[in-house]
Amino acid sequence: MGTDNSRLEKQIQFIIEIDKLKKIVRQTLLTDHSRKENDAEHSWHIALMSVLLSEYAQEKSIDLLHVVTMLLVHDLVEIDAGDTFCYDQKGNADKLERETKAADRIFNILPEDQAASFRSLWDEFEAGKTAEARFAAAMDRLQPLLHNYNTEGGTWKEHRILKDQVIIRNSAIEKGSSTLWAFAAQLIDDAVDKGFLMTNVPGPCTRVVHDD
Amino acid sequence: MGTDNSRLEKQIQFIIEIDKLKKIVRQTLLTDHSRKENDAEHSWHIALMSVLLSEYAQEKSIDLLHVVTMLLVHDLVEIDAGDTFCYDQKGNADKLERETKAADRIFNILPEDQAASFRSLWDEFEAGKTAEARFAAAMDRLQPLLHNYNTEGGTWKEHRILKDQVIIRNSAIEKGSSTLWAFAAQLIDDAVDKGFLMTNVPGPCTRVVHDD
Repeated sequence: MGTDNSRLEKQIQFIIEIDKLKKIVRQTLLTDHSRKENDAEHSWHIALMSVLLSEYAQEKSIDLLHVVTMLLVHDLVEIDAGDTFCYDQKGNADKLERETKAADRIFNILPEDQAASFRSLWDEFEAGKTAEARFAAAMDRLQPLLHNYNTEGGTWKEHRILKDQVIIRNSAIEKGSSTLWAFAAQLIDDAVDKGFLMTNVPGPCTRVVHDD
Repeated sequence: MGTDNSRLEKQIQFIIEIDKLKKIVRQTLLTDHSRKENDAEHSWHIALMSVLLSEYAQEKSIDLLHVVTMLLVHDLVEIDAGDTFCYDQKGNADKLERETKAADRIFNILPEDQAASFRSLWDEFEAGKTAEARFAAAMDRLQPLLHNYNTEGGTWKEHRILKDQVIIRNSAIEKGSSTLWAFAAQLIDDAVDKGFLMTNVPGPCTRVVHDD
C-alpha cells in the first residue's frame, strides 16, 4: 500500500481482513423480519448495548472500554470458523478447535503486541471468568433474546427450540447482571404466554392443529 | 414487555429501535465487491479501528471510550434522515436539518440523562472541535478510503469522483492524525497511479476509448 511503516501496514491489512465479518450470517432475524443479521451488525449492537446498560452490571467497578473492545472483537474468529448456532450440539463439539485455529491466524495479522492483546481479549471472553467477560456475555445473550421476542419467536420457532433450552442458554445473563436476568426471565415467560416459545415438543395432534 | 422498570423499558425500546441502522445502506462497497455496506457494519468497523489506531491520534491524552462510544452512536440519526453521500451537494444542503430532527426523535426514546448524553456525543462529533471528535472523524473518513482503494476505485468510479474532491473530503483526517493523513495521501496518489481515481473529468475522446 505504499508506506514504509510496516507496523501501520499490518494494522491496515487487519482492518481489510476483518471486513469479512460482515459476510458471516447469524441465525438471529432483524426485528423487521426481513433477513438474518451478520456478525458485524451484531457486534455493533451489543457494543452499544454494553454502554447503555452498564449501570446494571453485577460488579460496579467494571472497565467499560474493556467490555466494549471485547465485544467488538469477540466474533472475529467466525471469519474462518463460521457462526455456530448455540443450540447445535454437533457444531458445538468442535467449535473451540475451529475457533482457536481461526484466532491463531486472524489476530496474528496484527503487530505482535496488538495480536497478543486482542487474542487475550478473546480468550478472556471465552473463559468468562472476569466481571467484564461476564457482563459482555450477558449482552451477547440478551440481544438475540430481544430479537427472538420481537420477531414473534424467530429462531426459536424455526428450530423448534423449547423454553428449557432458552433458559439454560440465557441463564448466563445472571452472572453479568441479576437485574437484566430478571428482565430476561420475565420476557421468556411472556414469550411462552404469547405462543412465541414452546414449553415441550408438540405431538402429532398439535401439529394437525397448526397445519389448519 | 412485562416489567415495572420504566427506565429499563425505555432502554430496551431504544435497543430495538436502533436495529433499523442495519437497513441504512451506504455508498461504500464491501472489499469483496459483493454489495454496499450498511451503517451498523460501518459503525462496528470504525469503532474497532479507533481502538487499533489510537496510537496515531494527534493528541495523546485522548479518551478512547469517548471516541468509541461516539463512533457507535454517530450514524443513528440516519435511521430517519438516511445516508447522505458525502459528494452529493444537493443532499448535503438540508442534511443538518434532517439529522437534527432525527436526533430529537431517536435519542429521546432513552431516559432523560442518557438521551442528553448520547445527543451530546452526536453534537460533539458533528462540531468536530474536541480531540476525540477529530480522531473519530479521521476513522469515519479513512475507512471508506480503504474500501475504495481495495475495490479498485469502488464509489469513486461509480460516481466519477475526482482526486481533488477526495483530497478535500479526506483532509479532515489530518486534524485527527497527521500520521494517518500521510498514509491516506499516499494511498490517494497510489489510487491515481493505478487508475482507480481520475484527476480530471474525462473528455469525449477519453470516453470513446473507454467505450471500446
